[in-house]
Amino acid sequence: MIMSTKKFLLEEKDIPTAWYNIAADMKNKPRPILNPATKQPISEEDLYPLFAKSLAHQELNQSDPWIEIPEEVRDLYKIWRPTPLVRAYGLEKALDTPAHIYFKNESVSPVGSHKLNSAIAQAYFCKKEGVTNITTETGAGQWGAALSYAAKAFGLELAVYMVKISYHQKPYRRSIMQTFGAQVIASPSMSTKAGRKILTDNPNYQGSLGTAISEAVELALQTPNCKYTLGSVLSHVMLHQTVIGLEAEKQMEMAGEYPDVVIGCFGGGSNFSGISFPFLRHKILEGKEIRVVAAEPSSCPKLTRGHFQYDFGDEAGYTPLIPMYTLGHSFSPAHIHAGGLRYHGAGSIVSQLRTDGYVEAVDIKQLDTFEAAILFSQTEGIIPAPESSHAIAAAIQEAKMAKLEGKQRTILFNLSGHGLIDMTAYDQYLEGDLTNYDLTDQELSKSLDELEQIIK
Amino acid sequence: MIMSTKKFLLEEKDIPTAWYNIAADMKNKPRPILNPATKQPISEEDLYPLFAKSLAHQELNQSDPWIEIPEEVRDLYKIWRPTPLVRAYGLEKALDTPAHIYFKNESVSPVGSHKLNSAIAQAYFCKKEGVTNITTETGAGQWGAALSYAAKAFGLELAVYMVKISYHQKPYRRSIMQTFGAQVIASPSMSTKAGRKILTDNPNYQGSLGTAISEAVELALQTPNCKYTLGSVLSHVMLHQTVIGLEAEKQMEMAGEYPDVVIGCFGGGSNFSGISFPFLRHKILEGKEIRVVAAEPSSCPKLTRGHFQYDFGDEAGYTPLIPMYTLGHSFSPAHIHAGGLRYHGAGSIVSQLRTDGYVEAVDIKQLDTFEAAILFSQTEGIIPAPESSHAIAAAIQEAKMAKLEGKQRTILFNLSGHGLIDMTAYDQYLEGDLTNYDLTDQELSKSLDELEQIIK
Repeated sequence: MIMSTKKFLLEEKDIPTAWYNIAADMKNKPRPILNPATKQPISEEDLYPLFAKSLAHQELNQSDPWIEIPEEVRDLYKIWRPTPLVRAYGLEKALDTPAHIYFKNESVSPVGSHKLNSAIAQAYFCKKEGVTNITTETGAGQWGAALSYAAKAFGLELAVYMVKISYHQKPYRRSIMQTFGAQVIASPSMSTKAGRKILTDNPNYQGSLGTAISEAVELALQTPNCKYTLGSVLSHVMLHQTVIGLEAEKQMEMAGEYPDVVIGCFGGGSNFSGISFPFLRHKILEGKEIRVVAAEPSSCPKLTRGHFQYDFGDEAGYTPLIPMYTLGHSFSPAHIHAGGLRYHGAGSIVSQLRTDGYVEAVDIKQLDTFEAAILFSQTEGIIPAPESSHAIAAAIQEAKMAKLEGKQRTILFNLSGHGLIDMTAYDQYLEGDLTNYDLTDQELSKSLDELEQIIK
Repeated sequence: MIMSTKKFLLEEKDIPTAWYNIAADMKNKPRPILNPATKQPISEEDLYPLFAKSLAHQELNQSDPWIEIPEEVRDLYKIWRPTPLVRAYGLEKALDTPAHIYFKNESVSPVGSHKLNSAIAQAYFCKKEGVTNITTETGAGQWGAALSYAAKAFGLELAVYMVKISYHQKPYRRSIMQTFGAQVIASPSMSTKAGRKILTDNPNYQGSLGTAISEAVELALQTPNCKYTLGSVLSHVMLHQTVIGLEAEKQMEMAGEYPDVVIGCFGGGSNFSGISFPFLRHKILEGKEIRVVAAEPSSCPKLTRGHFQYDFGDEAGYTPLIPMYTLGHSFSPAHIHAGGLRYHGAGSIVSQLRTDGYVEAVDIKQLDTFEAAILFSQTEGIIPAPESSHAIAAAIQEAKMAKLEGKQRTILFNLSGHGLIDMTAYDQYLEGDLTNYDLTDQELSKSLDELEQIIK
């Protein structure tokens, strides 16, 4: 039953004035990103052709714990931030648990997800440095939609390479991007050398995120005043997302509680890092007892079953080498509905925190995520994105454990987005047409073996 | 360009404690609803078989200006209310107008529209009176989605008859209803006598709102402990929606301005009444100078071109006779994307206010609504529902007039819902596949002539 609820609301003045850069506080720093040819650490200057200088600086900054949020970015955050923290009474009652469950509601952003927190920051720094055009890739379209909004806010021209199969099968987010004025190109396309080569070899190829990255990077490099942007994995993206956790900290204080466990779903790490890093700060600096849990799909379980080693960020092997928990960059996850979690690796910071024991991970089966999503919809009244449903399922597991143990436990999870544009997935679930797609040991060994042979 | 904005935010304690019943203050009362057989006014008791008693009482109440909002309803309103009032700086700048434009953002509700304001109230009163099951009809699905949410909040079983063509062509809102636990039945169906008759005569009939109403009414009458509900036209629905305007009044005061003109899009009148009645109160009681404008589609222009007379509320002629501006209950509007505005008549209160000169109306062409919607998306960052885009287009016309006259003008419109589930419509507009569908004089005469012949 949907119940009356308790929202903890901040005022505009409470929007954080600085992002939290966890790398500055980590005892074991994230290992450097390497140039694949020389195996030497990448420098800031090496990143300039692709990224705005400020973003390149943020990417490698391991010394300043606080990075000031420019006033122009804060002003745009005010359109929807601060976002509510909600006590999930309806869900608690349905679970009959002694646990207190809170969620940070990032679904209230104008594009429906947390992705806008970094999109606005990236567009701002590009604009400030005189960039006129930006490119990116998108799969299901959450990141592309957010960047289209941000590009329109700063008057930048945006080209989005959208994986061809999604371009045709998920027209809603494509239309949202176009409504905001972005150019959306089905990838592979004839607009780049990489795309033309693939189309020549295989005219019917339906695209992949790896190909779309290659196209977006190529276009950025060949266009004057143009930079490339991306929505997860890299450290500057995690940095921008920390507004989520910084607000949540203040709101938990308003609620008079401190979380025992903080949960985020996990694809490349952007919303997970956003909700958890500000809380982890107190664990790192003060030894505060708090658990942090990444909820990933059992079809793409890099943190629970992958290896921690250098790997490429993209399928084609064009990017620098990143130290990551990975399933291998050639790993092709099953077509689960949580498109945003179908990525083979974790960003370098989360990977280091994971190996150092600061981050736990659980893998969730697809059917369990939809069961959790239906329960959440029918008790909290918000239909969650399939990605966010992984965090909900993990929170429910924690609440059930609390009941078994007969102990109170304070649970905080991030509701990274709503699922109003993902109703096809719900339809299939309600019709009984979905399955679990768990990764088998055999598939995992094969993918990791390939990785070993490629990366020496 | 999307710009930083100014939001006027109220606190939970500012959610109105009473709905405003404008009928009590009107000098010329709305004419009574008639029993079509006897031509006598319908009594409260006549409505009991269909509606909860409290709602029947509200429907005919013309004496109490304030109806207390039950605490349980206010508690659920707190989930998303108060909604923001926003100063549309981006839109103002794009129009280079001296006008100040404000919008009340009802799109932030968990189901994406204002419909929830009445759905929660109706479900509450049904529950309170021991009702266990409710029925309704829905076209595009905004009302059905809202009622599904409300039914889940009060533990009621809900059956929604959804027009068959929408059931198949607009699966997203159907899935939303099912996710909230409602039974959704494509209408015509085999579950009612009315449906069976139509299917026998015409097995391929794709349904109409009129047929869906007949089915929902029949099921309600034949099911123990079951009532029928609806999302617009009737006076008690308008009543519940006045929370919109009551909040907006306080927020305009925070902004230090008073609107010269208040605008809402117009289908049956629910969101229009909600935003405008609290402002009209001061015009009626104190002679305050304020204009109130209903924005309706040029394909379905009942207030601008219809007749004011008694007519049936449904296509089949099963309902009581309602005094309304109407195009004739057999009028079949073109298939514009603003499905919520495709209704042949206006509710009795608005019709009386219109004939008494309190309400103006403008008709807007479909292509103009999409042009307005794209401009609003690219300046305010919110993709509006096709229905709401009629109000935006009317607000833009007012702002352009202000510019021509070189005068400041304060404009307030209601953003009744977002368009994230209507992206197919945007797609067609961006592809150049839409057209205007203006009602011709010939079509209008034909429909009104038919009406004259039927209603004596």
